[in-house]
Amino acid sequence: MQMLNPHIQHVPLEKAYRLLTHGPTVLVSSKDHKETDVMAAAWACALEFDPAKVTVVLDKSTKTRQLIENSGYFALQIPTLKQLELVYKLGTTSKMTEPNKLEICQVELFQFENSDLPVVADCSAWLLCELIPEPHIQQAHDLFIGKVIAAYADNRVFSQGRWHFEDADEEWRTIHHVAGGHFYSIGKAVSVEEANLEL
Amino acid sequence: MQMLNPHIQHVPLEKAYRLLTHGPTVLVSSKDHKETDVMAAAWACALEFDPAKVTVVLDKSTKTRQLIENSGYFALQIPTLKQLELVYKLGTTSKMTEPNKLEICQVELFQFENSDLPVVADCSAWLLCELIPEPHIQQAHDLFIGKVIAAYADNRVFSQGRWHFEDADEEWRTIHHVAGGHFYSIGKAVSVEEANLEL
Repeated sequence: MQMLNPHIQHVPLEKAYRLLTHGPTVLVSSKDHKETDVMAAAWACALEFDPAKVTVVLDKSTKTRQLIENSGYFALQIPTLKQLELVYKLGTTSKMTEPNKLEICQVELFQFENSDLPVVADCSAWLLCELIPEPHIQQAHDLFIGKVIAAYADNRVFSQGRWHFEDADEEWRTIHHVAGGHFYSIGKAVSVEEANLEL
Repeated sequence: MQMLNPHIQHVPLEKAYRLLTHGPTVLVSSKDHKETDVMAAAWACALEFDPAKVTVVLDKSTKTRQLIENSGYFALQIPTLKQLELVYKLGTTSKMTEPNKLEICQVELFQFENSDLPVVADCSAWLLCELIPEPHIQQAHDLFIGKVIAAYADNRVFSQGRWHFEDADEEWRTIHHVAGGHFYSIGKAVSVEEANLEL
């Protein structure tokens, strides 16, 4: 499937960090020559502005990690409050023990043009990444680095390089895991200008 | 100064990840034999549960990075909405060009018992870390890994291993930077139980 939703727009790569900097829980997807998986990850982070890079922690027990090691590519995508149950299911069901995980979780996948990476429908943003191989930190710390090769966002909540949670329906808010299925949604916009900062 | 505030309690190391998993912007502090610095960092992340480990991205232009490289120790601390201006000032003033940065920013520092790491007063939580040297990723990616050696939180907002933003005054909320002084505060507690998930 191609990019059919007219709300989905390219995000310039040098602004892709803005999708992750506020610390949302993400979904990680990948595929190799025979399998596809999607998992949830709270430990994902921006790493560099330009070229845009990201980090994500992937436990050795996950199928998604195997697929990334096999293929060299992965997507980080930013789910919304509306997808809370889906995120929890994808984060607590392992394809290692449940080969039908994706069907059980009822996750809908699509692909962007010029990419065969599987990505999750109805998220607020997507970062398509090429693995930057760092075998030592992958093995010693379960830490993976990716170079962002394309980024997209739904303009109902992210446009012109900015999140607009305050103008969107609450179901578009990012979710931020703490532990054991307990999350916070992102809250109010606050800025130093509003705090009357004089610098 | 020792730990005088009775609200500050130890956090078990195996629960320290819960201080960072929801993605707040942090303050990073360090000192060497002659200097002390504090900076803001939005790109900090939990890395491991037990032993508790964290990552933080530190640009080569920062004094804090030099101090961490010299000393092998740093603290991550989690500021609150009340400290928004302080966080912005600490993130936009460089000690490289402003030797009196800490006085200019009017940051109040203290130390925990059995530690000489400078930490910032009035934060909601503190993670004292020992650098795990990884010279290649420090140089190539500006990425630093720390082992958490002690963790503390203010029990007015974090107790029994959980954040309680919903029961605390709004000024205790964590702040989550996006870009250019624009932040979001953390929002509502949401959990899969409340979403009537049947797993």
